[in-house]
Amino acid sequence: MSDPSLLETFPSPSSEPFVIEHVAEEFTALCPKTGHPDFGRIILRYGPGDLCVELKSLKLYYQSYRNQGIFYEAVTNRICEDLSAALKPRWLQIVTEWRGRGGIHSRIIATRGEPPPEFKS
Amino acid sequence: MSDPSLLETFPSPSSEPFVIEHVAEEFTALCPKTGHPDFGRIILRYGPGDLCVELKSLKLYYQSYRNQGIFYEAVTNRICEDLSAALKPRWLQIVTEWRGRGGIHSRIIATRGEPPPEFKS
Amino acid sequence: MSDPSLLETFPSPSSEPFVIEHVAEEFTALCPKTGHPDFGRIILRYGPGDLCVELKSLKLYYQSYRNQGIFYEAVTNRICEDLSAALKPRWLQIVTEWRGRGGIHSRIIATRGEPPPEFKS
Amino acid sequence: MSDPSLLETFPSPSSEPFVIEHVAEEFTALCPKTGHPDFGRIILRYGPGDLCVELKSLKLYYQSYRNQGIFYEAVTNRICEDLSAALKPRWLQIVTEWRGRGGIHSRIIATRGEPPPEFKS
Amino acid sequence: MSDPSLLETFPSPSSEPFVIEHVAEEFTALCPKTGHPDFGRIILRYGPGDLCVELKSLKLYYQSYRNQGIFYEAVTNRICEDLSAALKPRWLQIVTEWRGRGGIHSRIIATRGEPPPEFKS
Amino acid sequence: MSDPSLLETFPSPSSEPFVIEHVAEEFTALCPKTGHPDFGRIILRYGPGDLCVELKSLKLYYQSYRNQGIFYEAVTNRICEDLSAALKPRWLQIVTEWRGRGGIHSRIIATRGEPPPEFKS
Amino acid sequence: MSDPSLLETFPSPSSEPFVIEHVAEEFTALCPKTGHPDFGRIILRYGPGDLCVELKSLKLYYQSYRNQGIFYEAVTNRICEDLSAALKPRWLQIVTEWRGRGGIHSRIIATRGEPPPEFKS
Amino acid sequence: MSDPSLLETFPSPSSEPFVIEHVAEEFTALCPKTGHPDFGRIILRYGPGDLCVELKSLKLYYQSYRNQGIFYEAVTNRICEDLSAALKPRWLQIVTEWRGRGGIHSRIIATRGEPPPEFKS
Amino acid sequence: MSDPSLLETFPSPSSEPFVIEHVAEEFTALCPKTGHPDFGRIILRYGPGDLCVELKSLKLYYQSYRNQGIFYEAVTNRICEDLSAALKPRWLQIVTEWRGRGGIHSRIIATRGEPPPEFKS
Amino acid sequence: MSDPSLLETFPSPSSEPFVIEHVAEEFTALCPKTGHPDFGRIILRYGPGDLCVELKSLKLYYQSYRNQGIFYEAVTNRICEDLSAALKPRWLQIVTEWRGRGGIHSRIIATRGEPPPEFKS
Repeated sequence: MSDPSLLETFPSPSSEPFVIEHVAEEFTALCPKTGHPDFGRIILRYGPGDLCVELKSLKLYYQSYRNQGIFYEAVTNRICEDLSAALKPRWLQIVTEWRGRGGIHSRIIATRGEPPPEFKS
Repeated sequence: MSDPSLLETFPSPSSEPFVIEHVAEEFTALCPKTGHPDFGRIILRYGPGDLCVELKSLKLYYQSYRNQGIFYEAVTNRICEDLSAALKPRWLQIVTEWRGRGGIHSRIIATRGEPPPEFKS
Repeated sequence: MSDPSLLETFPSPSSEPFVIEHVAEEFTALCPKTGHPDFGRIILRYGPGDLCVELKSLKLYYQSYRNQGIFYEAVTNRICEDLSAALKPRWLQIVTEWRGRGGIHSRIIATRGEPPPEFKS
Repeated sequence: MSDPSLLETFPSPSSEPFVIEHVAEEFTALCPKTGHPDFGRIILRYGPGDLCVELKSLKLYYQSYRNQGIFYEAVTNRICEDLSAALKPRWLQIVTEWRGRGGIHSRIIATRGEPPPEFKS
Repeated sequence: MSDPSLLETFPSPSSEPFVIEHVAEEFTALCPKTGHPDFGRIILRYGPGDLCVELKSLKLYYQSYRNQGIFYEAVTNRICEDLSAALKPRWLQIVTEWRGRGGIHSRIIATRGEPPPEFKS
Repeated sequence: MSDPSLLETFPSPSSEPFVIEHVAEEFTALCPKTGHPDFGRIILRYGPGDLCVELKSLKLYYQSYRNQGIFYEAVTNRICEDLSAALKPRWLQIVTEWRGRGGIHSRIIATRGEPPPEFKS
Repeated sequence: MSDPSLLETFPSPSSEPFVIEHVAEEFTALCPKTGHPDFGRIILRYGPGDLCVELKSLKLYYQSYRNQGIFYEAVTNRICEDLSAALKPRWLQIVTEWRGRGGIHSRIIATRGEPPPEFKS
Repeated sequence: MSDPSLLETFPSPSSEPFVIEHVAEEFTALCPKTGHPDFGRIILRYGPGDLCVELKSLKLYYQSYRNQGIFYEAVTNRICEDLSAALKPRWLQIVTEWRGRGGIHSRIIATRGEPPPEFKS
Repeated sequence: MSDPSLLETFPSPSSEPFVIEHVAEEFTALCPKTGHPDFGRIILRYGPGDLCVELKSLKLYYQSYRNQGIFYEAVTNRICEDLSAALKPRWLQIVTEWRGRGGIHSRIIATRGEPPPEFKS
Repeated sequence: MSDPSLLETFPSPSSEPFVIEHVAEEFTALCPKTGHPDFGRIILRYGPGDLCVELKSLKLYYQSYRNQGIFYEAVTNRICEDLSAALKPRWLQIVTEWRGRGGIHSRIIATRGEPPPEFKS
């Protein structure tokens, strides 16, 4: 099962606002209806407060979804909640992009707080 | 004939505003003047209220246009109306992109409500 | 000679504002100075009022420039005027993109009315 | 049902061997197991003998598969047979490329006679 | 564990030699040293004898590697052996392409029999 | 009407075999059935004997087809013949690529003599 | 030496505001420190007042920099000044993009007046 | 160790605000945890005040990080600070893009002052 | 200094000939004339005999060139020799691709033994 | 004037046959008829005998054509001759690719000796 306790942090190197983006190309979970695997990528963007997420722990956290059945919309919001709770960022955005099933591919975007204007889309 | 009763919904997993985009690459209908098939893709973007559209039902709804004669402009507005009625979303946008005839390809955009600024174009 | 009487219209299928874009990849006219052919593409974007342009008539209208000598800047503004007069749209934009001569390629943009913010560039 | 009698021909303009390739981007048929539509493109390459295929008749022949249930492998070989019978070419090759289902996309190649070495791929 | 008994076949629709290619974009297995997931795509190309592989069964066969620890080189050769045994093809080629670890991405190619010259890459 | 007398030549700068390729992106002629314009590009490849084609004269020769009705297959072979007669090359190849009509785009290849192996496709 | 007297103008064909963009792909000057050639492209965008720049004269003006030693930053501002003086435009923007030296490539942007919002970047 | 004293400047050629962007494709430093090399590119964008950075000195400054252990987030902020101190620009932005480790690639953005709206993202 | 003793091997999983390709995107060494860093990628292709190269050891071997001064041509041949000695392969090919200096980018190819025809270029 | 005495060599690091390719993106000369500049890229490929060309000297040799009037076909053969004379290679190939004039872009290929089969095109 997905496990937010895997997430580790380190202190931000700057007190100025800045932007961090981590793009994970290799996310997989299971469709809760059919059991077939879903594949996608996860874009995490945030403005750190006092904490940054450690990159290897982020990877292990994403891997904890590998054999879990969960819908696109739910996994996007859960990752958004887990990272917001762990990092207490100025703002945070999760974009999930899914390779698709039956000729339809999808993108889900969840945001907490207010991203700076130069960091939209 | 196209059939909005095919659309099924499920409850949104979050009460926060977020964005869902489904891109259907394989849409086809018929030109009402010539009877020749048109091919295109349909981009659905919306901010869910209480409901999300179930993906397989969306696919079947799109397939119900396969042997229907309908203009680009009309099919775009009809899909926009059908999905707005079924989902009662915060906002919704349909973009249809058509492979074209006689050297001209086309794009039609219909919107209901106000998309967030980070989700334009 | 270019002939706006070729343009035909049909009633818009929606009273809501929406956006129509037709991209003609195969436009050609003649350079009025050298007589050599120019090649380009014409992007028409508009918000229909009561009328939409019929696609085949648009194609024939564009073909009527084939053996006419006219500068990039002039043809862009003339198409913009002819279509604005025929369609009486909420807004209308013509973008012409030219393959170029002597290592310089060009783009001309003429606009009437106010395009919606999600439809810039 | 698919109908090879739709194919029309015209005399080849040259007695020298040459190569003709027609790429149809918008082919659709139905999966015979599920009834869901398949989408793909069909590449026809041939060295004409006395006859060339007329382009509009080829398009109508392809459209005759629209509501027929047939597997990838079978439709590729049937088109190859129908066109070989109609054109009696020096050689002929059909490549079908399918957008895919469930994360797998496919390509099928059927050949009659010996394509020239500069026309492999 | 990977399971070749999942593979199903159907009779080839033609007695002429032809070529079939199935590209699976979403393959995943585990690294046997680190336990971390590997991601890649699997290209199957073959000249059918009497049998073709059924597409959904191929997908399930690939999914059976999901939680198995196996090296790039071994999984490529095993898939090549399993499909050769099930299909008894004229020739068969497996190409696996891996997204990579530590800045190195890889491709492995295993072949049984003699692919036709127009089908090299 | 197309006019091969427009073609001018100059002496080859080398007695060694070499290869010349000129790609004209902006060719247009008329469909002899419908009168609608066709657009394409023309690739000329040849091994010069004693003569090379002068580039501006080649451009004017191509422009002489602008208002001529002629099929894809015929124009390809005629250009091949006209240039072979004017240049008496070791070998010569004309590839025409057409933007297409009704969802089908085409490529025609005519060759005289034997292109060197490193210059195929 | 670079020579703004080469620039010629013609009257704008419209009294409405519109946008003109000319992209010169083949600009070269010399590095004033090393004497080595620099290569880049120059994007000119402007909203014409009463005058438009004649395209061939623009090309000759750009060619007048061919053997001049001048820094990226200086040539961008000088072209911006010369064209603003010659055209008296509503607004004008020069973007220079340089292929780079030692693994660093550069872009310089100089603007006079206020470009319309749909014409940024 | 990274060395800001390597940075050299020259006077800006214009008192008008303008924009300078230098993209260094070949940056490398070391991961402070594992000692493995990181590879990325560094985009510097700024509006010069009285001073511009000399390009060769910028390259040497970047090279001074080659054997230093430093996190993505820290190196981005340090470069932003060093260049802001050396140039005293109207505004300055550093974007670092990293090729990634373990399937995750990253981008960090640090900004000082207010970039003009046409120069976002 | 570069160190071939870092290379580790494991037994090939198949006695049949097959092909392995590892592409390292992040290679860097120093120019022996100027001391400036060179950046490139290294493509290793081989037909294993009894041994395969272990991927992490290959990465460490490549990293051992990081602070060594060596020409493009020499590093390509040295890697080819070191891997041939360690693996005793049926055949082996090293392709190095360099980002370039002063507007020239380079590729060097060294081969030992006879690659199969489907694995050229 | 172009000056082959600028070319410098160094001893090949291997007695085995191998392949060297240098791609110069920024070549310019003048059209001898019009005096307008031509822009292109020069691909040099060769199998070294005892000598390799030094990269900086190659760049200076190419720069010596900057203000010389010379046709595409002639410059390609002259570079081929000059480098063959300086390097005495096993084989050598020059490919020049020209950005084009009047909608036609060109490629010229001159070869001395016999390139290995894996190095065609």
